[in-house]
Amino acid sequence: MAKKLRVCVWHEFVHEKKNASVKEIYPDGMHVVIADGLREKLGDSAEVGTATLQEPEHGLTQERLDATDVLLWWGHCAHGEVSDEVVNRVQARVLQGMGLIVLHSGHFSKPFKRLLGTSCALKWREAGEKERLWVCNPGHPIAAGLGDYFELPQTEMYGEPFGIPSPDEQVFISWFEGGEVFRSGCTWIRGNGKIFYFRPGHETYPIYYDENVRKVLANAVQWAAPQGHWVGVMAAPNVPVDKAPEPIVAKGPSVHEEGEAGFR
Amino acid sequence: MAKKLRVCVWHEFVHEKKNASVKEIYPDGMHVVIADGLREKLGDSAEVGTATLQEPEHGLTQERLDATDVLLWWGHCAHGEVSDEVVNRVQARVLQGMGLIVLHSGHFSKPFKRLLGTSCALKWREAGEKERLWVCNPGHPIAAGLGDYFELPQTEMYGEPFGIPSPDEQVFISWFEGGEVFRSGCTWIRGNGKIFYFRPGHETYPIYYDENVRKVLANAVQWAAPQGHWVGVMAAPNVPVDKAPEPIVAKGPSVHEEGEAGFR
Amino acid sequence: MAKKLRVCVWHEFVHEKKNASVKEIYPDGMHVVIADGLREKLGDSAEVGTATLQEPEHGLTQERLDATDVLLWWGHCAHGEVSDEVVNRVQARVLQGMGLIVLHSGHFSKPFKRLLGTSCALKWREAGEKERLWVCNPGHPIAAGLGDYFELPQTEMYGEPFGIPSPDEQVFISWFEGGEVFRSGCTWIRGNGKIFYFRPGHETYPIYYDENVRKVLANAVQWAAPQGHWVGVMAAPNVPVDKAPEPIVAKGPSVHEEGEAGFR
Amino acid sequence: MAKKLRVCVWHEFVHEKKNASVKEIYPDGMHVVIADGLREKLGDSAEVGTATLQEPEHGLTQERLDATDVLLWWGHCAHGEVSDEVVNRVQARVLQGMGLIVLHSGHFSKPFKRLLGTSCALKWREAGEKERLWVCNPGHPIAAGLGDYFELPQTEMYGEPFGIPSPDEQVFISWFEGGEVFRSGCTWIRGNGKIFYFRPGHETYPIYYDENVRKVLANAVQWAAPQGHWVGVMAAPNVPVDKAPEPIVAKGPSVHEEGEAGFR
Repeated sequence: MAKKLRVCVWHEFVHEKKNASVKEIYPDGMHVVIADGLREKLGDSAEVGTATLQEPEHGLTQERLDATDVLLWWGHCAHGEVSDEVVNRVQARVLQGMGLIVLHSGHFSKPFKRLLGTSCALKWREAGEKERLWVCNPGHPIAAGLGDYFELPQTEMYGEPFGIPSPDEQVFISWFEGGEVFRSGCTWIRGNGKIFYFRPGHETYPIYYDENVRKVLANAVQWAAPQGHWVGVMAAPNVPVDKAPEPIVAKGPSVHEEGEAGFR
Repeated sequence: MAKKLRVCVWHEFVHEKKNASVKEIYPDGMHVVIADGLREKLGDSAEVGTATLQEPEHGLTQERLDATDVLLWWGHCAHGEVSDEVVNRVQARVLQGMGLIVLHSGHFSKPFKRLLGTSCALKWREAGEKERLWVCNPGHPIAAGLGDYFELPQTEMYGEPFGIPSPDEQVFISWFEGGEVFRSGCTWIRGNGKIFYFRPGHETYPIYYDENVRKVLANAVQWAAPQGHWVGVMAAPNVPVDKAPEPIVAKGPSVHEEGEAGFR
Repeated sequence: MAKKLRVCVWHEFVHEKKNASVKEIYPDGMHVVIADGLREKLGDSAEVGTATLQEPEHGLTQERLDATDVLLWWGHCAHGEVSDEVVNRVQARVLQGMGLIVLHSGHFSKPFKRLLGTSCALKWREAGEKERLWVCNPGHPIAAGLGDYFELPQTEMYGEPFGIPSPDEQVFISWFEGGEVFRSGCTWIRGNGKIFYFRPGHETYPIYYDENVRKVLANAVQWAAPQGHWVGVMAAPNVPVDKAPEPIVAKGPSVHEEGEAGFR
Repeated sequence: MAKKLRVCVWHEFVHEKKNASVKEIYPDGMHVVIADGLREKLGDSAEVGTATLQEPEHGLTQERLDATDVLLWWGHCAHGEVSDEVVNRVQARVLQGMGLIVLHSGHFSKPFKRLLGTSCALKWREAGEKERLWVCNPGHPIAAGLGDYFELPQTEMYGEPFGIPSPDEQVFISWFEGGEVFRSGCTWIRGNGKIFYFRPGHETYPIYYDENVRKVLANAVQWAAPQGHWVGVMAAPNVPVDKAPEPIVAKGPSVHEEGEAGFR
């Protein structure tokens, strides 16, 4: 029997409690609806759980992350409340091999900025306009089951320039009714972790009930499944002179005492 | 008359004061020797200054960074003493267009880790062994004036795996006497900034007096000169509905008040 | 005195002789108008010439290519008439360091397909619709002097998927009136050559008289100027055993006679 | 039951018939030994066959390629005898999604040069020297089951510069006894096809009997398995005006008659 994919949907879970229109669409929180969509599409092949900002350690203890294959991240107004310690952990786990799917306003989340290193900035407008997401590669696993494009009738606009390192692969580019374009689906590999950014998801529209969005997220989870792990990815080991692959004799001065750890 | 390139050599300047063998090689600090090498090679085309950890704001005030085209960075035992505020500034300036050249143990410096987002870890050994740096692209501007390879008679070893995002260009790969290999010269673009990592430079050997190392650094400074600037690279502007390129009418709910800034 | 940039605008020059609307817009051929635009913008800093399919060796002898820093390429209905020998030469010169700017329907030209290795295919429609080109990086030298976007009132549509290797940098993405998007400005480095693909240019509209298009082409020529050259880029030299950097003794059998060239 | 991976090992199969030392090591041809190694490691999960230059259409008919998930390619002295028609087919299948693993001297094979577009040149020496392959990413699926490095006691040397587009991922870098280094394991994605170049394999040494080499090839076959397919990857469809996603009216002249195919 194939091992189940262990998926965790993380959500800051703030706007649902404050904003009436968000609460109406997502009475139990967006994470619940996203997780339901994944369960619907992935069935027995995955075990889907959730975690939120308000839980101890934001629900992302080392144990939880070690038992997570793919993490989805939704944040917006509470990016600054995520502790750096949890961000460190998430970064290390991605570099080891955990997949990371960053949703919508998560472009400004700490883990995304940490892993990409750029501004992650963009233009934006809330006008409930139409978005058409074009598939840049119909053979890409994240686009499986879609047509040439799909549309969202009402959405927030994100526009270029998008402050990211050049993506490894461009999966979607969006056309907006108001005249902008945006790189809506981008992939990167960092360490052994696969990262996918997916633009749709504004909390004032029922985006995560959309059939095509659910397909994309389920596809992305399968795509981001770890292909390999490297537990020691953050280590910087010293190689003692007598363990060099070729025989050598130490002959120069040193800044380290014997056996001392490297500086960080 | 062409504009002079404004270069700043940053150095933590710690080991020269503590370690006798480092002090002997670099009595006034490595930054002084690196800057001298650049002046020797670049002559009138550049204005080369220095800055150190001990100066107010580490010598990297906003004014100084705004007046810097290319920054070189050497740090080792004091990475943790660099303030996050200065790191934020350096990152923003690189994304705007400033070139950044990271030297040797700077692989673990805060600005390098911030901009690349990965572990930046590696293997290491201090045995004073020979290093041979192979040129992976003899036509690359950073390798101008070199032969097929050059050698350093005594150096610290750095070995793979090197925890970096795949480089845009591989300029050098090192062969070590003790049997290891390392990606010793790597380039990346982040925002508009060109980044070059150059491995040699261990403080217990007179690396920065070496003719080939001086050539590489001078070449790299010229290569990293800003080709363009984008002052507003960190901004995430709202586009008001009535400024959309195509006429649209706002039709949905919103999480922002009119004119409110986006969340970060 | 700085060396002048040597620019060559290559054009198949066929439609102007056959199609009345093309002839009306470009009576002397598009290459003449493109070259005029470059002269207007680059002034004394460049020497701009042209070459066409009908000249001996298509005007691209080895001598001509060796004396060219940046080549612009426009082809459409006569891609198949370009000789493979000339394509080999263009490829080798780009790998050595010559810049290459491929225009519009040149996405299916032999040199572009040769250098990129992918399908280079796309969707298309001739309806004279509006195109808006968004700048994905306002600090990129190719976008210097442009605003957030510029528009072409009438153009052919090219739509995604565009069958290219992931670009090193995304400079422009187009929004089309009819609802499509396209990666309209893309850069790649191959060997030492900088390659820029720029989408606008359909021959039934006066695209190459457009002020913004002229700016982009002049910027791109400057961006694509060779930073380095590697004359021997196509060579695969044998290293005789007694020239190895480390002393070794040959000890195994061989498939080559001593001094024999490698197989190709 | 999971679908079996359909693997084809292609070999020019020439040196085994001409060179006594090659014949002794590989009496039935290298393809047979490579295929045996894959069967040993992949067991029931794969169906491994072979094809050779001498078969009709080199054994790579359209039907055969359509029924192949991963193709391995070994060629050396007969690159020029491979027909362009077969190369076209291989290229199209890779872009659709077929994996391609190029071995050793296949760096100069037509399919590899076609898909990468660069010189693919390198330095070389036949001296039977030792090679040590370092793993640049211990978590990469292609390196699964290996230690920090593995060695080949006798091998041909390949040295930098290697004329390739910057790899998506660097899996191996080699250290040679004679003093050179080489990017020995590189990956690229082109279209939907995963490409892996693996350096070892010189025909005068029993490389394909080596346990670690066999592990790498089996890992690489699994890594290169198609994740998606795009049958129409080479098509460049016209979008009729009345099928545009947004309603538009054709308003300009055209170079194509209605319904005419695009130029190639």
